[in-house]
Amino acid sequence: MTSCNATFNQRLDRLVGAVTGELVACRRDFHTYAETGWTEFRTASLIARRLVELGLDVRVGREVIAADARMGLPAPPTLAGHWARARAQGGDPDFLDAVKGGYTGVVGVLGDGDPVVGLRVDIDALELHESHAADHRPVREGFVSVNDGAMHACGHDGHAAIGLGVASVLSDLRDFLPGTLKLIFQPAEEGVRGAKAMVAAGVVDDVDYMLGLHLYSGWPIGQFVAGKGGFFATDKFDAFLIGEPAHAGGNPQAGHNALLAAATAALNLHAIPRHRDGATRINVGKLIAGQGRNVIPPSAHMVIETRGATTDLNAYMYQAAIRVLEAAAAAYGCDLEIKPMGGADSADSDVKLAGRVARVAGGLPGFEARPAGRGGGSEDFTYMMRRVQERGGLATSIGLGADLNGAGHHTATFDFDERALPMAVHLVSAAILDLQCS
Amino acid sequence: MTSCNATFNQRLDRLVGAVTGELVACRRDFHTYAETGWTEFRTASLIARRLVELGLDVRVGREVIAADARMGLPAPPTLAGHWARARAQGGDPDFLDAVKGGYTGVVGVLGDGDPVVGLRVDIDALELHESHAADHRPVREGFVSVNDGAMHACGHDGHAAIGLGVASVLSDLRDFLPGTLKLIFQPAEEGVRGAKAMVAAGVVDDVDYMLGLHLYSGWPIGQFVAGKGGFFATDKFDAFLIGEPAHAGGNPQAGHNALLAAATAALNLHAIPRHRDGATRINVGKLIAGQGRNVIPPSAHMVIETRGATTDLNAYMYQAAIRVLEAAAAAYGCDLEIKPMGGADSADSDVKLAGRVARVAGGLPGFEARPAGRGGGSEDFTYMMRRVQERGGLATSIGLGADLNGAGHHTATFDFDERALPMAVHLVSAAILDLQCS
Amino acid sequence: MTSCNATFNQRLDRLVGAVTGELVACRRDFHTYAETGWTEFRTASLIARRLVELGLDVRVGREVIAADARMGLPAPPTLAGHWARARAQGGDPDFLDAVKGGYTGVVGVLGDGDPVVGLRVDIDALELHESHAADHRPVREGFVSVNDGAMHACGHDGHAAIGLGVASVLSDLRDFLPGTLKLIFQPAEEGVRGAKAMVAAGVVDDVDYMLGLHLYSGWPIGQFVAGKGGFFATDKFDAFLIGEPAHAGGNPQAGHNALLAAATAALNLHAIPRHRDGATRINVGKLIAGQGRNVIPPSAHMVIETRGATTDLNAYMYQAAIRVLEAAAAAYGCDLEIKPMGGADSADSDVKLAGRVARVAGGLPGFEARPAGRGGGSEDFTYMMRRVQERGGLATSIGLGADLNGAGHHTATFDFDERALPMAVHLVSAAILDLQCS
Amino acid sequence: MTSCNATFNQRLDRLVGAVTGELVACRRDFHTYAETGWTEFRTASLIARRLVELGLDVRVGREVIAADARMGLPAPPTLAGHWARARAQGGDPDFLDAVKGGYTGVVGVLGDGDPVVGLRVDIDALELHESHAADHRPVREGFVSVNDGAMHACGHDGHAAIGLGVASVLSDLRDFLPGTLKLIFQPAEEGVRGAKAMVAAGVVDDVDYMLGLHLYSGWPIGQFVAGKGGFFATDKFDAFLIGEPAHAGGNPQAGHNALLAAATAALNLHAIPRHRDGATRINVGKLIAGQGRNVIPPSAHMVIETRGATTDLNAYMYQAAIRVLEAAAAAYGCDLEIKPMGGADSADSDVKLAGRVARVAGGLPGFEARPAGRGGGSEDFTYMMRRVQERGGLATSIGLGADLNGAGHHTATFDFDERALPMAVHLVSAAILDLQCS
Repeated sequence: MTSCNATFNQRLDRLVGAVTGELVACRRDFHTYAETGWTEFRTASLIARRLVELGLDVRVGREVIAADARMGLPAPPTLAGHWARARAQGGDPDFLDAVKGGYTGVVGVLGDGDPVVGLRVDIDALELHESHAADHRPVREGFVSVNDGAMHACGHDGHAAIGLGVASVLSDLRDFLPGTLKLIFQPAEEGVRGAKAMVAAGVVDDVDYMLGLHLYSGWPIGQFVAGKGGFFATDKFDAFLIGEPAHAGGNPQAGHNALLAAATAALNLHAIPRHRDGATRINVGKLIAGQGRNVIPPSAHMVIETRGATTDLNAYMYQAAIRVLEAAAAAYGCDLEIKPMGGADSADSDVKLAGRVARVAGGLPGFEARPAGRGGGSEDFTYMMRRVQERGGLATSIGLGADLNGAGHHTATFDFDERALPMAVHLVSAAILDLQCS
Repeated sequence: MTSCNATFNQRLDRLVGAVTGELVACRRDFHTYAETGWTEFRTASLIARRLVELGLDVRVGREVIAADARMGLPAPPTLAGHWARARAQGGDPDFLDAVKGGYTGVVGVLGDGDPVVGLRVDIDALELHESHAADHRPVREGFVSVNDGAMHACGHDGHAAIGLGVASVLSDLRDFLPGTLKLIFQPAEEGVRGAKAMVAAGVVDDVDYMLGLHLYSGWPIGQFVAGKGGFFATDKFDAFLIGEPAHAGGNPQAGHNALLAAATAALNLHAIPRHRDGATRINVGKLIAGQGRNVIPPSAHMVIETRGATTDLNAYMYQAAIRVLEAAAAAYGCDLEIKPMGGADSADSDVKLAGRVARVAGGLPGFEARPAGRGGGSEDFTYMMRRVQERGGLATSIGLGADLNGAGHHTATFDFDERALPMAVHLVSAAILDLQCS
Repeated sequence: MTSCNATFNQRLDRLVGAVTGELVACRRDFHTYAETGWTEFRTASLIARRLVELGLDVRVGREVIAADARMGLPAPPTLAGHWARARAQGGDPDFLDAVKGGYTGVVGVLGDGDPVVGLRVDIDALELHESHAADHRPVREGFVSVNDGAMHACGHDGHAAIGLGVASVLSDLRDFLPGTLKLIFQPAEEGVRGAKAMVAAGVVDDVDYMLGLHLYSGWPIGQFVAGKGGFFATDKFDAFLIGEPAHAGGNPQAGHNALLAAATAALNLHAIPRHRDGATRINVGKLIAGQGRNVIPPSAHMVIETRGATTDLNAYMYQAAIRVLEAAAAAYGCDLEIKPMGGADSADSDVKLAGRVARVAGGLPGFEARPAGRGGGSEDFTYMMRRVQERGGLATSIGLGADLNGAGHHTATFDFDERALPMAVHLVSAAILDLQCS
Repeated sequence: MTSCNATFNQRLDRLVGAVTGELVACRRDFHTYAETGWTEFRTASLIARRLVELGLDVRVGREVIAADARMGLPAPPTLAGHWARARAQGGDPDFLDAVKGGYTGVVGVLGDGDPVVGLRVDIDALELHESHAADHRPVREGFVSVNDGAMHACGHDGHAAIGLGVASVLSDLRDFLPGTLKLIFQPAEEGVRGAKAMVAAGVVDDVDYMLGLHLYSGWPIGQFVAGKGGFFATDKFDAFLIGEPAHAGGNPQAGHNALLAAATAALNLHAIPRHRDGATRINVGKLIAGQGRNVIPPSAHMVIETRGATTDLNAYMYQAAIRVLEAAAAAYGCDLEIKPMGGADSADSDVKLAGRVARVAGGLPGFEARPAGRGGGSEDFTYMMRRVQERGGLATSIGLGADLNGAGHHTATFDFDERALPMAVHLVSAAILDLQCS
């Protein structure tokens, strides 16, 4: 293996150095024109354009997104409005039609041999108003989001740039790539809504080694975890309770009180018993109920998620939650509608593959392993991991430190150390090449 | 009418005077051997014996009690044990077999003409431990209950004595009774459990004028209300929730928590909306749930009542309550069993009949009308009132003051002024005779 | 009395006929430029202008509105925006400064002798989008509201026109008015927010006879109730629960869950016991809680009202509600803020004054008494009634039928029969004149 | 070490063989006269007697039990009644006075050198009715409990016999015991009520190696775990809510409803958030509330426990629980009393000591190591472990299989394979001797 790697290591160093400026520019462009889940029209079209330029075989839209498996899709007017905005903001006309209507996935393939190494890259922004404080670097250096209510506050702008960087570097190193590189640009990771639709479209069915990378602002630059785990399985869903209004003073008995049904449900959802087999979670994150002060509330909207340290534990929570909701609706004579909004399985990285990535990182300058932390978060990369593992492949997630100012993910002043971009391209490219050598 | 009455008034005065000692002795005997609802074996058998002696036509047991309409029947061992006790305490052997098993109603009929005047007399004691304080008169004068856990704390011992007193007086005045007197001795008024079964057996179907009398310890001696109303309709029922136990530390998710189902139900039962049309009530009077500290509670027993100012209002509460209970059971995967324990309709006294009784009282010495009070209580005499009213008859309830020491009904030191006994016999007998005169 | 009235009756008939066209025009103008509570800037300024023209002594703004007693005041930007709109829509410049900032009350006084007869007129619109259906008469005849989100859907546009009509007619009949007429144009009756501030400013302190009139779309034209009662006392208030956010997956124990505190409160608020003394109500009309699906909800906003058939019953409900809210906040370590948003006392019309108004109506063409209905609604005219009654005066409310198409009050297609406008002016003017005659 | 052990191994084998019959007889005697926590008067007195006979230095009662640290003590009449029963059933008169009043601990000391090895033995029975089924071995072979409501259903009868067996064997091997053996017979392990009081009395303050042994009916005979862990920290407590009664029909607003306070508490207790750091538990195992169907419930009694995988996690749950209970009481104007009923810390066995015990077991016939299982249960031996560890000593728990018929611990048909008794004596004695050798 060592001899195999030795041949390309020096060239890889040089190539990564050469794309560094482009990585930063690309990241800042995506940051400026931040697009939220299922509306990454501009982002996806420009990714597709660049992959074509680099000579990859590119598939976009319905070919790589199963329509019915999409979760948490925005309403049609939102999709249409954001699509028009993407066109106005320089989306590539050759690809905008393909992604229209919420089909914002892109897959680029380089090579056609074995093994097939997949890299998942998520590309969506968050529904968040970016800070306009003068000392927020994107403001200071002119790449703050121009799309109000959309902000790259989780580093997916960086991920997208890294994906393109890997494509660029490895297309220059095709000779060392006997197998296949499959770059999977995924929409709507926030809310864990997008991976399922790409898996359902079959995009990872031929993958032997599946990699996913995430930047972390909380870790010092250069620290990494290969095999980052502890992803909780999760279901995201909305519950709508529909009752009957009535005048609260003159006719109170005539109402079917959806607010009280929701209150009963909220309490009993949080009272679902702990489980012997491990950690579970539930949250009613939002509740919007009622109409006017003097009207028996005819409707309630609950924004809910369940989690579990395993897929079974999450399923336990979800089933109990549905039972509680149905009962609460029945107690008040309300109708209940459940709308799935997202979901992810739990998954474990393969120790063998994670160790191999760690060894590669250990041979590169500036990397230092850090201990794996506690779980609680969720990630829909797990769908891809599980599919690959079920079909006999190996999968691992990789975390990479990029701390800048300590502002946490999903906050309005999030930013990251852009030196992590070339490091990430270096690590991922080296790992992919290494996996060709065995 | 006046001439009709004038003929018997003087004789009535004398007859009432003659039975006064007997009334007190009879009341104190019933008080000593207090028997609770559906177990008035000794009481009923002695009533039947006395009515036969007075020459009335007497029916006892299944003839006057519809088996399936009995509510809140004690368990068979309790029935059997109390029956044996009644035999030991001097119950009349000729009638004990007829009342065995919880058929403790008696009807005595005098005369066979029209009109038929009914008088309802309730005869049961309460499940209460009578005070043994030295200054409690039944202790001081030797008639405190010898049956532990049974106490006449609502004056039904007096009612029973009054009923027999009326029988005695009117059997001596048969010449002035062209119509019929129907004395209805009813078991299990406490918990409103017994009247329904006598109505179902048809005992009031031929009644033209229906009277019911109640002594009140809170009113000064001699004060009366003819047409006492405001009886709430009510349902008394028990709810049993059956879940699954599990070890609370090692296996919490395996339980079906009946205690939490009951807690959810209790809150939502009390949250049933107020009703536009008038007063409603609900109470979860008792809740007994669970098994051990470290066991997910597998069972809960709720003791519930609903009320309404009208029968419709109570029905609204009862139906909403059942819906809430079913939903709470479903939320926790529990089974639900509802057991009816008692019930009463609302009913209004007929103004015309009440006025006639009031006029009679006004002509007797020592009586003074008092204003009618607020409602909230319940009484199963309402079943009899409604049946008579539905068939074209008139009905009224009569309240009579008998205050002694201020101790409230249903307390361990309840007692009443025995001077009310001959007054009640006087009033009721005079009213019955008056109703024959029209 | 009769001779006194006889002298002006014929003139009154003519004068009412003469103002009929003006009444309709005025009502339609107010309807077109509907203004919600505390922002009736245009409406109030034009009323003041007209009263001055009619020769009344006029007071506006802070003189008749006690600043601190205003409830449910909109936020400053709303006040400022609506004031600017009023100026643009033809508000009278002479009075706009006086009403700026939410001081939109006007009082006009005619005469200065005894007795003082007050008439309360409410002038605000509802926060409602008026229907633009082609068959909605205000659309068809061109007076639909041009102010989006504000609609006269409770007839206060008519009330304002009637008030001006009474001013016009009676200023022509000054000779028959030995006493004083006091016209009180009140803002913010919807939500029962405005009367308290006018009472606190002392505007009814010298009134001997207090009248209030309301049109009812549900009653046939010409039907009236003098002494309309059954107004429930009420408190309107908002509760804000402030907790702590936390990541629902990674750090759930760190949150202080305001949504669960609100759910607990909602259930227990509705479970506040019924009251022996009469009807009570409570409603949590709206609940808005939480932030994001995966965040422990840090805040909740509850929109609440209590009611009671008497002021004491409402006070019982309000105090119990506060106790429940405080406890629910404490259970979840949340802060609680209560913001009063409106309120009204219960009040009863004086039978004597109501009877006098009824007699007057009986002598006018087209009027027919209807039976008083059931209660449940609330009205802040009660504040004025109670103050007058406490100071030895008499007060009554008057309801007048104006049914057109059956669309209920507070709906988007509400309208009323404008023939009721001159009838109301006739009735109120005649009653005021009659009260001068005694 | 090996040479040290070699010298006594053969003698130990023989001695264990010699006491086997006595072990079974002793266990069956304790089983027959089962005594529940804090009332082990006969059991403790006979243990003390036997230890004296074997030449140990014995301390009993208040010397080894800190009065104020006892939790969950039965009521005085129960203590008195069970003490009288113990005397009647052959308790040793020399020691009965010392244990009277709930001081049923015994400590026996053999030797006085270093190191000090402690063995904890729990001796109490459960509040359970033992099965009288003909095929239940204690029935068949004549040692079923004669004390109704008390049953050795967790093997503590065996533990007590083992403790005496170890005393017997090691008193014969004193020459090989340069250090000290400290046998600690602890009352009231069920409900985790007794260990704290012995620790508070200082009985483990001089211990260098602390051992605790438990038989498990669910494991095959001979399987053992040295270092059995996963004990959850726990608090057991009762909550009493005191409100005000009122007639539910006539005066509902006057009550302070303790049942609804308890229901609110129960729901919110179970809704206490999961904790990031590990497993937590809560259970309201019993709820008894209310008085009569038509009385607003004036009282509620809740039987509660919290648990946590660590002492901190349990403390988190306990503190949250108290906050919830206080708030629920406040919501209904009830008083709250909290009564501690038991408690245990979490604790971990020392790996080094556990390994040493495992090696000893590996050298004995018939033992086989089994994998450690999942946690969830609690044990107050943890108090002793932590105290010893805090003072620099080592501690471990030991589990030993004794499956007979599969009936679980704490069931009415529990029994165990008595062949485990000599095996336990063998293992514990060998381990204690081994610990002297280092």
